[in-house]
Amino acid sequence: MSVPHIDYPVDFDQDPGLLTFTFGGKDAVAEVPAPGTLSTSTLDAFAGRLNRPDMLPSDADLQGYLNPQTGPFFIPQAHPGDTLAVHFKSIVPHFDFGVSTLIHFFGALTSTPQTPTLQDPLPERLWYYGIDTAKGTVTLNAKESAHSFDFALDPMHGTVGVAPAKNEVHSSLTPGAWGGNMDTPELRAGATCYLGVNVEGALFNFGDGHARQGEGESCGTAVETAMDSTVAFDVVSNYYTPWPRIETDEFIMTTGSMRPMEDAYRIAHTEMVHWISEITGMSKLDSYQFVSQAALTPVANAVDTVYTVVCKIPKALLGGADVYGGIHEKLKTY
Amino acid sequence: MSVPHIDYPVDFDQDPGLLTFTFGGKDAVAEVPAPGTLSTSTLDAFAGRLNRPDMLPSDADLQGYLNPQTGPFFIPQAHPGDTLAVHFKSIVPHFDFGVSTLIHFFGALTSTPQTPTLQDPLPERLWYYGIDTAKGTVTLNAKESAHSFDFALDPMHGTVGVAPAKNEVHSSLTPGAWGGNMDTPELRAGATCYLGVNVEGALFNFGDGHARQGEGESCGTAVETAMDSTVAFDVVSNYYTPWPRIETDEFIMTTGSMRPMEDAYRIAHTEMVHWISEITGMSKLDSYQFVSQAALTPVANAVDTVYTVVCKIPKALLGGADVYGGIHEKLKTY
Amino acid sequence: MSVPHIDYPVDFDQDPGLLTFTFGGKDAVAEVPAPGTLSTSTLDAFAGRLNRPDMLPSDADLQGYLNPQTGPFFIPQAHPGDTLAVHFKSIVPHFDFGVSTLIHFFGALTSTPQTPTLQDPLPERLWYYGIDTAKGTVTLNAKESAHSFDFALDPMHGTVGVAPAKNEVHSSLTPGAWGGNMDTPELRAGATCYLGVNVEGALFNFGDGHARQGEGESCGTAVETAMDSTVAFDVVSNYYTPWPRIETDEFIMTTGSMRPMEDAYRIAHTEMVHWISEITGMSKLDSYQFVSQAALTPVANAVDTVYTVVCKIPKALLGGADVYGGIHEKLKTY
Amino acid sequence: MSVPHIDYPVDFDQDPGLLTFTFGGKDAVAEVPAPGTLSTSTLDAFAGRLNRPDMLPSDADLQGYLNPQTGPFFIPQAHPGDTLAVHFKSIVPHFDFGVSTLIHFFGALTSTPQTPTLQDPLPERLWYYGIDTAKGTVTLNAKESAHSFDFALDPMHGTVGVAPAKNEVHSSLTPGAWGGNMDTPELRAGATCYLGVNVEGALFNFGDGHARQGEGESCGTAVETAMDSTVAFDVVSNYYTPWPRIETDEFIMTTGSMRPMEDAYRIAHTEMVHWISEITGMSKLDSYQFVSQAALTPVANAVDTVYTVVCKIPKALLGGADVYGGIHEKLKTY
Repeated sequence: MSVPHIDYPVDFDQDPGLLTFTFGGKDAVAEVPAPGTLSTSTLDAFAGRLNRPDMLPSDADLQGYLNPQTGPFFIPQAHPGDTLAVHFKSIVPHFDFGVSTLIHFFGALTSTPQTPTLQDPLPERLWYYGIDTAKGTVTLNAKESAHSFDFALDPMHGTVGVAPAKNEVHSSLTPGAWGGNMDTPELRAGATCYLGVNVEGALFNFGDGHARQGEGESCGTAVETAMDSTVAFDVVSNYYTPWPRIETDEFIMTTGSMRPMEDAYRIAHTEMVHWISEITGMSKLDSYQFVSQAALTPVANAVDTVYTVVCKIPKALLGGADVYGGIHEKLKTY
Repeated sequence: MSVPHIDYPVDFDQDPGLLTFTFGGKDAVAEVPAPGTLSTSTLDAFAGRLNRPDMLPSDADLQGYLNPQTGPFFIPQAHPGDTLAVHFKSIVPHFDFGVSTLIHFFGALTSTPQTPTLQDPLPERLWYYGIDTAKGTVTLNAKESAHSFDFALDPMHGTVGVAPAKNEVHSSLTPGAWGGNMDTPELRAGATCYLGVNVEGALFNFGDGHARQGEGESCGTAVETAMDSTVAFDVVSNYYTPWPRIETDEFIMTTGSMRPMEDAYRIAHTEMVHWISEITGMSKLDSYQFVSQAALTPVANAVDTVYTVVCKIPKALLGGADVYGGIHEKLKTY
Repeated sequence: MSVPHIDYPVDFDQDPGLLTFTFGGKDAVAEVPAPGTLSTSTLDAFAGRLNRPDMLPSDADLQGYLNPQTGPFFIPQAHPGDTLAVHFKSIVPHFDFGVSTLIHFFGALTSTPQTPTLQDPLPERLWYYGIDTAKGTVTLNAKESAHSFDFALDPMHGTVGVAPAKNEVHSSLTPGAWGGNMDTPELRAGATCYLGVNVEGALFNFGDGHARQGEGESCGTAVETAMDSTVAFDVVSNYYTPWPRIETDEFIMTTGSMRPMEDAYRIAHTEMVHWISEITGMSKLDSYQFVSQAALTPVANAVDTVYTVVCKIPKALLGGADVYGGIHEKLKTY
Repeated sequence: MSVPHIDYPVDFDQDPGLLTFTFGGKDAVAEVPAPGTLSTSTLDAFAGRLNRPDMLPSDADLQGYLNPQTGPFFIPQAHPGDTLAVHFKSIVPHFDFGVSTLIHFFGALTSTPQTPTLQDPLPERLWYYGIDTAKGTVTLNAKESAHSFDFALDPMHGTVGVAPAKNEVHSSLTPGAWGGNMDTPELRAGATCYLGVNVEGALFNFGDGHARQGEGESCGTAVETAMDSTVAFDVVSNYYTPWPRIETDEFIMTTGSMRPMEDAYRIAHTEMVHWISEITGMSKLDSYQFVSQAALTPVANAVDTVYTVVCKIPKALLGGADVYGGIHEKLKTY
């Protein structure tokens, strides 16, 4: 086993086992110790098959190639009941372009297989973005007019997770308690993600690089692009994180992924109430009050098979409370 | 008719008609021309009846006193099919305290009359916050431990709206297309709110001052307090705003209020797509793409009878597109 | 004041006050004592304006004419805190035809203003049904093929209610705790509906006759037709019914109207648990168990501004428990 | 491989591989040809561990033993893209008792891990039902009073399905497009269930016998009991059934399993519209109209990780339209 190395263009026929399309259900491709770091690359959510401005999504055979993950990685120090801490040291677009799409019956502002109607789909579209890492921009060129917009480059991974509990195996298109396709722009370089470990070795996957993404990812896709990323791992032993959490220099965050969206909200906020209670020593109800006045609550995605909502609390309010034993600061030094 | 003047303590028996508990269904208390300004005061959401640290919500008779509104105001220039622009020039807490509460079966993290279960309610609670306008803080003192936290003072109005369409009359506890109890922290001083006019004179109400509020308002109440506020009005003739919009120096925003929360999201985002298309001249689908990559999407409230989600677009991305003819800049000068 | 008499064709210009389009917000058109009966007529949900097989919904100006109600009726014996019992003695289609429609962005299997998308609407359609009261059939003739189907005639009223609480006024298109547009086929002749009284005289409205309706009313409209109906009233003093209940010879039923649909379910089922506990004397949890194994739970409507779910318990299981003092049996004799 | 034979009491230590707790992810325990029949037995949802009237759910270690399935069975004639037809010839309770429970944070009228709140759970409870197959009754004895009720015995399987698509593996507690824990009382003896085949051999599981169940299964559990069941299999080649369908002598039915519940409704009803169009030859919109007036729409479950709604159409209305080539009638003869 060795860390996957993606040669472009990708020849899936040559190495059909290179990529992973599920959380759970597949053997590790490599072992990475914790503490330790991993430098690898991830394909974009279309496995590189949408790569020209003149293409439409239906011009490529995407069936069976959606949201390929790099991994899974076996972290020997991670045992069921632990928490895997994953710090994103760098996330750098591999190419100078990314694509976003309208795919039939996919997105927040269309009927979908989960919310079907009898209406016709919206038309297909593909937007080919220029990515300029030097200028720090991604450029949208409108398809039906001459408009052009420079957005800030803000690279992130939409899909980050471990093998689920109860022997379940979930598509890489789905988010849940194991992480997965949460599609939150908070997972940028500098962030640490905490994931409860369900199986020996955690079996960590990631992928779905976005050069940037709006909150909600309304059309169903961000500026999808391949990434070269370095992540650092550590393990918090004997502490299980029920739903994915994120820490940055400024915020601690909880996530909930569920339908309807108020249930994703309920999960993120109850998780934060319990976490605040735990790290401050306040009662559950005082912590509820604290969160009620202090929280920021962005929608992460409104388009995946279940929706993700994030609850953020500024660390400045916490008076130095112990967050996972300071592991975020430690991981920054790896 | 003259602008209501609230004398503290309020004697409801003396002037039972002073306050309003619905949007629609009540005659105007005063006429305010547009363009023009209004300086008035609003009671807090408990009508001043929860005003000591040792109280519980059930110590006061709140039935029939929840979320009193100041108004309605008749704006003679506002006709059905127009848009009323309301700019918040200043929102200043009247007292040096505010209260937040846990009320039985009210809030995001409890069962409610809308989402009932057979469980017992959470215990009642009242938190009495100190408000220090000089230092710019509101102070939470935990009830069950010695913890104390200073949050940033960030005054806003939770409830802002006009008479609904179709002769409906809605409780001031409900948000909807007419505005109402949206409970978004975006309605702070400096913001302009755009509301579609449904009846002659618009019949504008507002109230529900919050010294600050977390996004979602999880426990059901913010730091509730009486406010002295100055608002400036103007009218955009012959342009109807279907759902409330907000403009600040930095952002344009749409709102949606609905259950389940994904439908509030769908409303806010479709409204933004249509608005971006209108002000940029891009096609609907290019605007959908633009919003997908550019939007910020905070939850406003997850606790009212229906939920509110906000979609925000940075004005810096819009290249000087015409937003309501520049009325926000004009209102800042009133 | 006298009982409205509808002369066909209706001349709205001559008598613009004849019909009502809200629950609450309008003075009574007539007084009906309880106990007592009322024979009157109701227009169909399109106010008679869609009345030929070759029409489309857009061929008529329906704006302001949707779901006209007959009433409100003032029942002098009904005081706030009481329950109004309304027994449907007969519901007879006035004409030999009814219509069902596809209206843009209305129905369960299309996007709607409450669940918007960016898709185009489904095409408009009008189906003109023959109603044969002698044979007991309504006949569907397909529009795009030669198919024809005879369904059982099963007349009912989709909209039945009283003035809402808290001075609210709701459109007749909306169901809620006051009744309103519940659209359940259970409200056929032989059924008694129990409604909590919120204002003096209850202010009872009804309308929206359906020659038959499927459970859910997927396309948004049933076989809409004018009805000649006789209802009997009685009042249960000092007992408030929080959400509408229905009794037939076979079943007792509770209703819940809310979004998302699971919340309508939660309301209907918690209401039934509490009701079973009250009439059997069992504990809350034993009643929960009883309902869990005994309930039938049809969806009433999935198309109105909020959805309605019904919970039904066979009276045969109740061992003669006292249901509203036997008022259903009494009302059958009026 | 041979058909599993359950010896009571079950010794899981002796045969840990006897039962299955997922759909997908496990090798077949036996091969059954189609056409062909299978007589086997299923454990109850608590794996027989709750078996005395004086127990509470927490008296048994249920972790890892919830909802055991018998299977999976490999049907050699079933290939991906086919439909597996499963006819329930007989479903007979193995014991003279069944149990229903209140488990902490499980059920429709409590907060749950999917819809969390900060409230305490409802108390635990276990109801021990007598089952009298001769009299055809199941008997509820209240726990907190002397009440006793005889309900009609109505045996069914709550969980019936095949391996999911896309290499996913789902817990037996979850329903979905593969079937699974749909918990509809329609799956009684005499019913044929149609399931789309995703993998070679279909890998059919079933279990979760209910002596009876109310629609919605509000408390989270039905009258749970072990069953001796005979099922007949056949395969419809080259026709894929996207969501489970059911046929009885009287009805054809579609199912949808999703959150929120209106999405389960939308799936069931769109599936029925497409199916009616297919078997009658009517257009999509005429079929929509047909379903709108003809459908019965019971809620199946409101308690599982996603909810299930059923749409039923009387076969009498279909004029002998071809339903899966008459396979239901054929399977009755096996």
